[in-house]
Amino acid sequence: MNISKNSSGAFSGCSPIVVEESFALDKPSLQDNTADWDRLLKHLKKKSFEPLVLKGITLEKLRKITETVRKNNFAGRAVLIYAKDGWDIVDVSEPTPAESAFEGPFGAAFDLGTTRIAFYLIDFSTARVIYETSVANPQIPFGEDILSRIHYASTDEKLKELQILLIDAFNNVIEKVMGELNLSTDRIYAITVAGNTTMSHFFLGLNPSHICRDPYIPVVNSFPIFRGRELGLSMNPEGIVYVFPNVGSYFGGDAVAGIIASGIYQDEAISLLVDVGTNAEVVLGNKDWLIACAGAAGPALEGGVVERGMMATPGAIDRVRINPETLELTYHTIGDQKPIGICGSGLIDLIAEMFQAGFLTIQGKINTKLKSPRIVNTPDGTGFIVAFAEETADGKDLIVTDIDIGILLKSKAAMYTILNIIARKVGLDIHDIDKFYVAGTFGNHIDPRMAIRIGMLPDLPIEKFIPMGNTSGKGASMLLLNRKIFQDIEEICTKITYVELNVNVELIHEFRGALFLPHTDPSLFPSVRIPEIARG
Amino acid sequence: MNISKNSSGAFSGCSPIVVEESFALDKPSLQDNTADWDRLLKHLKKKSFEPLVLKGITLEKLRKITETVRKNNFAGRAVLIYAKDGWDIVDVSEPTPAESAFEGPFGAAFDLGTTRIAFYLIDFSTARVIYETSVANPQIPFGEDILSRIHYASTDEKLKELQILLIDAFNNVIEKVMGELNLSTDRIYAITVAGNTTMSHFFLGLNPSHICRDPYIPVVNSFPIFRGRELGLSMNPEGIVYVFPNVGSYFGGDAVAGIIASGIYQDEAISLLVDVGTNAEVVLGNKDWLIACAGAAGPALEGGVVERGMMATPGAIDRVRINPETLELTYHTIGDQKPIGICGSGLIDLIAEMFQAGFLTIQGKINTKLKSPRIVNTPDGTGFIVAFAEETADGKDLIVTDIDIGILLKSKAAMYTILNIIARKVGLDIHDIDKFYVAGTFGNHIDPRMAIRIGMLPDLPIEKFIPMGNTSGKGASMLLLNRKIFQDIEEICTKITYVELNVNVELIHEFRGALFLPHTDPSLFPSVRIPEIARG
Repeated sequence: MNISKNSSGAFSGCSPIVVEESFALDKPSLQDNTADWDRLLKHLKKKSFEPLVLKGITLEKLRKITETVRKNNFAGRAVLIYAKDGWDIVDVSEPTPAESAFEGPFGAAFDLGTTRIAFYLIDFSTARVIYETSVANPQIPFGEDILSRIHYASTDEKLKELQILLIDAFNNVIEKVMGELNLSTDRIYAITVAGNTTMSHFFLGLNPSHICRDPYIPVVNSFPIFRGRELGLSMNPEGIVYVFPNVGSYFGGDAVAGIIASGIYQDEAISLLVDVGTNAEVVLGNKDWLIACAGAAGPALEGGVVERGMMATPGAIDRVRINPETLELTYHTIGDQKPIGICGSGLIDLIAEMFQAGFLTIQGKINTKLKSPRIVNTPDGTGFIVAFAEETADGKDLIVTDIDIGILLKSKAAMYTILNIIARKVGLDIHDIDKFYVAGTFGNHIDPRMAIRIGMLPDLPIEKFIPMGNTSGKGASMLLLNRKIFQDIEEICTKITYVELNVNVELIHEFRGALFLPHTDPSLFPSVRIPEIARG
Repeated sequence: MNISKNSSGAFSGCSPIVVEESFALDKPSLQDNTADWDRLLKHLKKKSFEPLVLKGITLEKLRKITETVRKNNFAGRAVLIYAKDGWDIVDVSEPTPAESAFEGPFGAAFDLGTTRIAFYLIDFSTARVIYETSVANPQIPFGEDILSRIHYASTDEKLKELQILLIDAFNNVIEKVMGELNLSTDRIYAITVAGNTTMSHFFLGLNPSHICRDPYIPVVNSFPIFRGRELGLSMNPEGIVYVFPNVGSYFGGDAVAGIIASGIYQDEAISLLVDVGTNAEVVLGNKDWLIACAGAAGPALEGGVVERGMMATPGAIDRVRINPETLELTYHTIGDQKPIGICGSGLIDLIAEMFQAGFLTIQGKINTKLKSPRIVNTPDGTGFIVAFAEETADGKDLIVTDIDIGILLKSKAAMYTILNIIARKVGLDIHDIDKFYVAGTFGNHIDPRMAIRIGMLPDLPIEKFIPMGNTSGKGASMLLLNRKIFQDIEEICTKITYVELNVNVELIHEFRGALFLPHTDPSLFPSVRIPEIARG
């Protein structure tokens, strides 16, 4: 039941959660004296809008709908929403739609990340994503990381303040995009939101303080469906807002949306899905079972930790190659600008290429045995000049030090450890995995061969790696176009086993081995050639 | 699945639609890190509150409930409402209830009549009706009859005015009674309303103008469930308001509630239920089929049409006996007061006794052959003094004329005709009926032997007649105490066939024959002795 986007951006296999249905009812007569409302419902049931649960019917809406039906002589267009367990009528308007380039009705999917908010606008009439954009999470000034924000939100007022920032950000992007397309925000009837557990709590104004405190309990895992008016969102006030459920404090709706996007829960094959954002979430399983865990693995890849690290934005070095013969280094920057810093995929490339060229020992230290103008002493120890001062935006050498590399190696070791431990939990060898989905910023930019070479990803045949992009946003969009996914999500949440990664001897041993390049046990990485000089 | 009231006023066989459940949840731990909200739901599901559909969960309610659960260390009392297709959580409060004579939670049932509104207060904790009262319908000044009120409500403002009268009347009675019992109106979590189609439309502010116009179409037959706040009712704002569905313009929720109260839809036996209010509604059937019709049969029985007719209120003559030997007349008035007028049951008694004593001919004319000081000439023709001037409240003779009697005979003929025609529609003889339920004011006060003698009710063995009182109010109360009745009501509405009584030759012939005392065909009334003198 996978939905895949075709080249024109349309989804196939659709059963959208919002449908606009034109109707012309049989006129009442002495022989057919069904009441107006019942007549409309009967017609909709005949058109297979079943079950018709009418969760959101208020007296006001009932009056408006029946009056419109009468006024238009029993014809019109009804907007129906499938709200998880059945259809609801939200609106009835006159038979002729307003003219517009996009017919609608519309839906919006949000990937609510700690750092960025991605937005997808969907036209239900064509089942297409008609607009994609993203904005920074406006909570960043209150803390780059989630913990600082939770601490900030210690009172109801401050919690409300953080919530309003998100609602305003959502509304701004909706209003900007709908304005550009000359469409009314009232024509948005469904919004799906996939965020991590804390972000979802912030978005709904729910107290997140127990999420980060033993025993780590969210207020809600499975959120009821809300209405636009309850949250003050720029959409039809009677439209629905669906927030993806969390499995737990450290496995949120974004990860659940990722499982949906990958389709691993419907596949015979054993797949692994890894999403490295601020945190790394890993899911392993197939159509019969799912096991998940999460852990800190990513900070080094998102900038802010490595001295010259940065997000994958213009000016970031995202590709590095070193000719092992000539030791000549070439790089690519996003936007082809002068380099400002280096992003996650750039760092992985750099370390992989430095290792292959002999600039790094298997312990991950810069190999001072090798003579090169790029190797320099810095106050932070030995450094490696990626770009010389004359090439960079700020006119300073862009240097990566032993310390920076050490940080990255800890991240890669953590990742490899998590992957191995989760596989072992179910009695599998990591090499038994059939498909390896790589999601997130990481999945978008990384070259798996490089990640294998540094021992971050296991040494699987390269064709097993499937980059996925923003799986969270994709899952949130897919739900809008396939109402059966509501059920899938519930099943996933029931089925999935979340494993706490307890810091124990096994984990520490595993982690220590993984700190090496590519690993203390090179037999795990048969495809990786270890240069003699790297053996130190 | 009948619910019957026992001598102490409690109902047996209960599964109330509102339940207050005390809970003490397992405390969260690292081993059991379910979220607060999910923890509560899990517990309630374990307690068999299934399905848990949560139709009315708003973000505000979710926040309040989860905060209360935390604050009270995972214990408390939850109020759950079964809203037609599943349970909803409405409220969570602290573990210890406030002390009071009645524990609650409470529900209220209303029989919303054109003339009177009956109110029943139910304590769900004991499944008892703890208070019953009734008030006049405040719309009477806008028209005694429904048609005048529909005509009055020709604009949105006037419709709103009539709606507010009803809402205020409901609120007044609720506030008065709850105040008397020292209970908060917020503890009322469910209100059921059984009214005729027009009254239900007025109550909800729905346009009734098409109900009385060919092809007679209500706005709604099957009403969604509303919340107290939507209607501004003095109850918990999140409590539910259930309005009994109509079968059509002339067969309303009051009649459906009557079917519930009588239980004829669950019985093997073929039963007939007749409710004579302003209109007469007749239902015939058993557990397999139901047929219904309605017609004007009652006005003469409710006062206002007969010159000295009045409602069954203090001062009304409700019983009349005439000794056929001595021609001595005795009567009884409601409240043992001096007579003011005569109510429906008094009129039926009077005509039955006049007929038996020879005061009336079989054509229904006052028999002037009989010499009596009670027979007098009036400007309206021959009259019969029921009470002499010296006995009455106004010091005037209480006289019933040939014209008055003619009006009553038309009513009784209409009733008999309807009963026969509906039986014949399904190929039955009216004498094949096993049980004959008589509801309404009529059923409360009438003596079936007298009604048979005048040919109003068929000549069935007297034990087949079962007086039912206010079936509409009873049905509305029963639903509060038995959630399975939601399903029963839907089945009744699907199953029932409503028959239009077309004015045709057959009906006119039938009606003409029924205008006689007891009938032109006396073999239909073998138990009725026709005095020789009455043959004229």
